[in-house]
Amino acid sequence: MTDSPLTSVAVAGVQMDIAFGNVSSNLQRIEGLIHSPQLATARLVVFPECTLTGYCYESKDEAWPVAEKIPGPTTQAVIDLARSSNKYLVVGMLERDGKDLFNALILVGPNGIVGKYRKVHLPYLGVDRFTSPGNDCFPVFDLGFLKLGLAICYDGSFPESIRVLALSGADLVALPTNWPPGSEVFAEHLPSVRAMENHIYFLTVNRVGIEREFEFIGQSKFCIPTGRIVASAGATEESVLLSTVLPAIARQKRLERLPGKHSIDRWADRRPEMYASICNPKQ
Amino acid sequence: MTDSPLTSVAVAGVQMDIAFGNVSSNLQRIEGLIHSPQLATARLVVFPECTLTGYCYESKDEAWPVAEKIPGPTTQAVIDLARSSNKYLVVGMLERDGKDLFNALILVGPNGIVGKYRKVHLPYLGVDRFTSPGNDCFPVFDLGFLKLGLAICYDGSFPESIRVLALSGADLVALPTNWPPGSEVFAEHLPSVRAMENHIYFLTVNRVGIEREFEFIGQSKFCIPTGRIVASAGATEESVLLSTVLPAIARQKRLERLPGKHSIDRWADRRPEMYASICNPKQ
Repeated sequence: MTDSPLTSVAVAGVQMDIAFGNVSSNLQRIEGLIHSPQLATARLVVFPECTLTGYCYESKDEAWPVAEKIPGPTTQAVIDLARSSNKYLVVGMLERDGKDLFNALILVGPNGIVGKYRKVHLPYLGVDRFTSPGNDCFPVFDLGFLKLGLAICYDGSFPESIRVLALSGADLVALPTNWPPGSEVFAEHLPSVRAMENHIYFLTVNRVGIEREFEFIGQSKFCIPTGRIVASAGATEESVLLSTVLPAIARQKRLERLPGKHSIDRWADRRPEMYASICNPKQ
Repeated sequence: MTDSPLTSVAVAGVQMDIAFGNVSSNLQRIEGLIHSPQLATARLVVFPECTLTGYCYESKDEAWPVAEKIPGPTTQAVIDLARSSNKYLVVGMLERDGKDLFNALILVGPNGIVGKYRKVHLPYLGVDRFTSPGNDCFPVFDLGFLKLGLAICYDGSFPESIRVLALSGADLVALPTNWPPGSEVFAEHLPSVRAMENHIYFLTVNRVGIEREFEFIGQSKFCIPTGRIVASAGATEESVLLSTVLPAIARQKRLERLPGKHSIDRWADRRPEMYASICNPKQ
């Protein structure tokens, strides 16, 4: 297999329950999953937001003991899993940096850590009541076989997040989430729209199960660049979403729909000069 | 009735077929509809893109005879309808200005023309192959009882269009469309997402019927600011979508979901400093 945009690659999202506050238990779950037959073909596997820690902490003090520096022992443990399975993994964890706590993702592969992402948009909810906002650019990682953009949960409801990732070259955006009740409209409609408006692959990976007062709503989805949903999960069960990503499809923003009669270009047809108030809000 | 944001107002969208090239026939249809019992309570009525002219012109020369200056005789005819029905009307037409042709909307009320909008984003499709792009700001019109933002069809697939309207204060964005086959994902998912991400009312008004090679796909929708669809139309039949808009709901961007546990603010939680590449594309 060569790492060309013309090569298709299998990508998976794992909708799962998470053991609150129990990093080693969650690591064991990941280990079992990535060696399971249903993920055998997947070169990249995406897990939910806060995969290793859970989300519904009631104070910063409560969350602090499960948070870690990146890299650190837990990052190394995930790298070991990536190496043993020969896969790239996106895993959610809480990060400590000085006195700050971040809601973060790590992207690791067989050769070590590729990068990390700190959640930019924070709702007043769960551990995000106590985390600091990420201030780094929305990241796109070139894995050779795929350019991967990362964002987390609430980031996705700001169209600018995914737009910036797509303009930065993402073929696929993975959005690990912890959708609480009330996010059903988001779960149902958002993946298709983010995929279509940016002409990218879009994968939402939510969790299931109950943590304190929140029953997470599942409904993870995998969309192709037309916005069509090609894999989806139910509201309560653990589930693997597996699909093929062909980077060349996402990179062709000009769409010829009916020769001579109907074509569009998702990039060339943009009018950035008309969007100034997005970055310079009047209100 | 006072014109306060706390007063609810009935707004309608009319999904209809359109007579190609026959402005007077389409005006007659509008006249019949706005005096019909089902629109009796509507203070604002929105019609599809190119309501008065149809869309599938094969050359600029073919479209030119049905285009008009704004204001002009046809604008005056629509004002007369607005006055006789005591309603505000959004009607699509082709506009001439010098040698340019624009895909435009007029917004008229009982006291005359309120404003117009020229489509900013042009697909290579139908008459838009021969029109010039609008270069004016995305407009929000304060009708007293409601702040109305306007965009047309393809504008809606660029999230920036609706974002700019919402940041400019729109309570409701009306999106008259001429969705051709292939826009089904757009029709199904986009209205909910545009409503939710901006916390506004969002109304798509498509047409039905066949014009040359295109069979328009209907499926107009009316969404409230949570993204919930409260009125929707089928794929082939003419249909009226009628719902209530309460501007105060759209203006409250801070959403308290679970006291002390979960709140978000669609505006305050934005991070405009992170969005620069939207207006300064690197590619």
